[in-house]
Amino acid sequence: MQVVGRADIDAVIDMVSMAPAIEDAYRAASAGEIEMPPVGHITFPDVEGDCHIKFGHRRGSDDFVIKVATGFPQLAATSAPSGNGLSLVVSAQTGEVRAVLHDQMLLTDIRTAVGGAIATRLLARRDALRLLVVGTGVQARRQIEAHVALLERDLEVAVWGRSAEAAATVVTDVSPGADAMVVTDLADACAGAELIVTTTAATSPLIDAGWIVPGTHITAVGADAPGKHELDPQLLLRADLLAADSRHQCLDHGELSAVATAVTTVAGVVEIGELLAGAAGRQHSDDVTIADLTGIAAQDIAAATFVLEALATG
Amino acid sequence: MQVVGRADIDAVIDMVSMAPAIEDAYRAASAGEIEMPPVGHITFPDVEGDCHIKFGHRRGSDDFVIKVATGFPQLAATSAPSGNGLSLVVSAQTGEVRAVLHDQMLLTDIRTAVGGAIATRLLARRDALRLLVVGTGVQARRQIEAHVALLERDLEVAVWGRSAEAAATVVTDVSPGADAMVVTDLADACAGAELIVTTTAATSPLIDAGWIVPGTHITAVGADAPGKHELDPQLLLRADLLAADSRHQCLDHGELSAVATAVTTVAGVVEIGELLAGAAGRQHSDDVTIADLTGIAAQDIAAATFVLEALATG
Repeated sequence: MQVVGRADIDAVIDMVSMAPAIEDAYRAASAGEIEMPPVGHITFPDVEGDCHIKFGHRRGSDDFVIKVATGFPQLAATSAPSGNGLSLVVSAQTGEVRAVLHDQMLLTDIRTAVGGAIATRLLARRDALRLLVVGTGVQARRQIEAHVALLERDLEVAVWGRSAEAAATVVTDVSPGADAMVVTDLADACAGAELIVTTTAATSPLIDAGWIVPGTHITAVGADAPGKHELDPQLLLRADLLAADSRHQCLDHGELSAVATAVTTVAGVVEIGELLAGAAGRQHSDDVTIADLTGIAAQDIAAATFVLEALATG
Repeated sequence: MQVVGRADIDAVIDMVSMAPAIEDAYRAASAGEIEMPPVGHITFPDVEGDCHIKFGHRRGSDDFVIKVATGFPQLAATSAPSGNGLSLVVSAQTGEVRAVLHDQMLLTDIRTAVGGAIATRLLARRDALRLLVVGTGVQARRQIEAHVALLERDLEVAVWGRSAEAAATVVTDVSPGADAMVVTDLADACAGAELIVTTTAATSPLIDAGWIVPGTHITAVGADAPGKHELDPQLLLRADLLAADSRHQCLDHGELSAVATAVTTVAGVVEIGELLAGAAGRQHSDDVTIADLTGIAAQDIAAATFVLEALATG
């Protein structure tokens, strides 16, 4: 059993190299090629913490992957990381645990950010440059990094947080790789944005439907468990296109769960993997498009497999 | 992150020492003191393998536990172990992974066997000595070991398997610790037994209701996933007492799932933890009692905690 620490994992991954594997994972998931049982979830209410267990098997693959990710947001005020966990790579022929990738949330952070940029690239207007990132945690930084790396255009990044000081730290952290600035009025910032990425653990909507102008694309990655919501349900109902990494997961416990009854009967939701396989996306330059990402085991399988292969060949 | 291998785990555990912790786990689980989300399960149909992920948190405890156990029965014909896996001990305050107990199924085997002997001890007649073990895998051996260790009486053990040769190997393996012999006629063996422990991965009933004589106690540990059954449903309906490690799990995917509608409306099922807390068990010497054990996360938490404490103090 190979045990690999975070530094050794960090040394072999980069977002641009990993993106094709994540795209392939989305495609395979939507094509039904990956067995992904329901996500395991446990909460620790006393400290507002939780743990997700995502696991799955790509049919025909020698291995399957079990990914454990914890979130203890209260630790953000300390020097300890608020996200943690590991991935297990297990033989699907013998059950032997081949590797423990003790990434301490690194792979989840990276694959989530790469997934976000893939969704934005698929659905946003090609000329969209003004990116608003909502939130000031690790994922805010990672989404900026991924959007800069994968969109290949000169993004103008605005960062909003409940704390302007925390937003300023994000701006500092992502510079000079990204051209970023702090914004303090979320309504104005939304109206001025062409791309919005929401990354908070909010449990009530932060973004009002009335703030969003025609043509905007929104990638929402914060809502990944029951009770978490960043977007006004009216915005979801008003959008011209709703996308999801997993229709099932997003309608169950993502942003879309707030409007599950309405969208399943009225509109429908397209999966990222279906868009990658050629399904219709944005139709008009003034469409409002929304991608709801809860994070799927297919991404975790792809990320862990990518690392193991890189370690073996590197 | 402490990584502990099977040999180091084996060196600090024994069934008699661990039994009180397992009993306490059953009691706590039935008292609602342990958060145990639904068991994760994934199958690998091409090779008839599967993997269970059991996880939970005892409220107030510093840590929670995620237990991964795989089963690839076809490997029984090879030199590779058919069961494998590990347990993760994770901080419930920070998400930090404290320990990887790479027990390769050892802890699951032990806690399952100890649980079986605890159930038998609770429900069998005190004078019952004739134990029939059905099956010839690792768990058959472990159940014999646990029953000998925990029942503290001179058991006469009969072993039945589809292959008499495999049964003979079990007898050899458990000798001289247990007074064991091979039996070849399952119907006769059932009629002659006072205690029966079933340990197979059978998907259709092996044991006919008509073979069981009054006074018999049966502990069934093989059925732990949808589609697995060792006992004739008529036997379950006819039993004077049905017990389960977890009412919810057993009615969902244990032996009891075959008669879930009938037993939930007609009879009711008592949990092992409730029996340990004083609920009524066997009423008459000629009662037929059945304990259905699917294995619960509470046992895995107790086993992992036991090992970590033993390693720390040892």
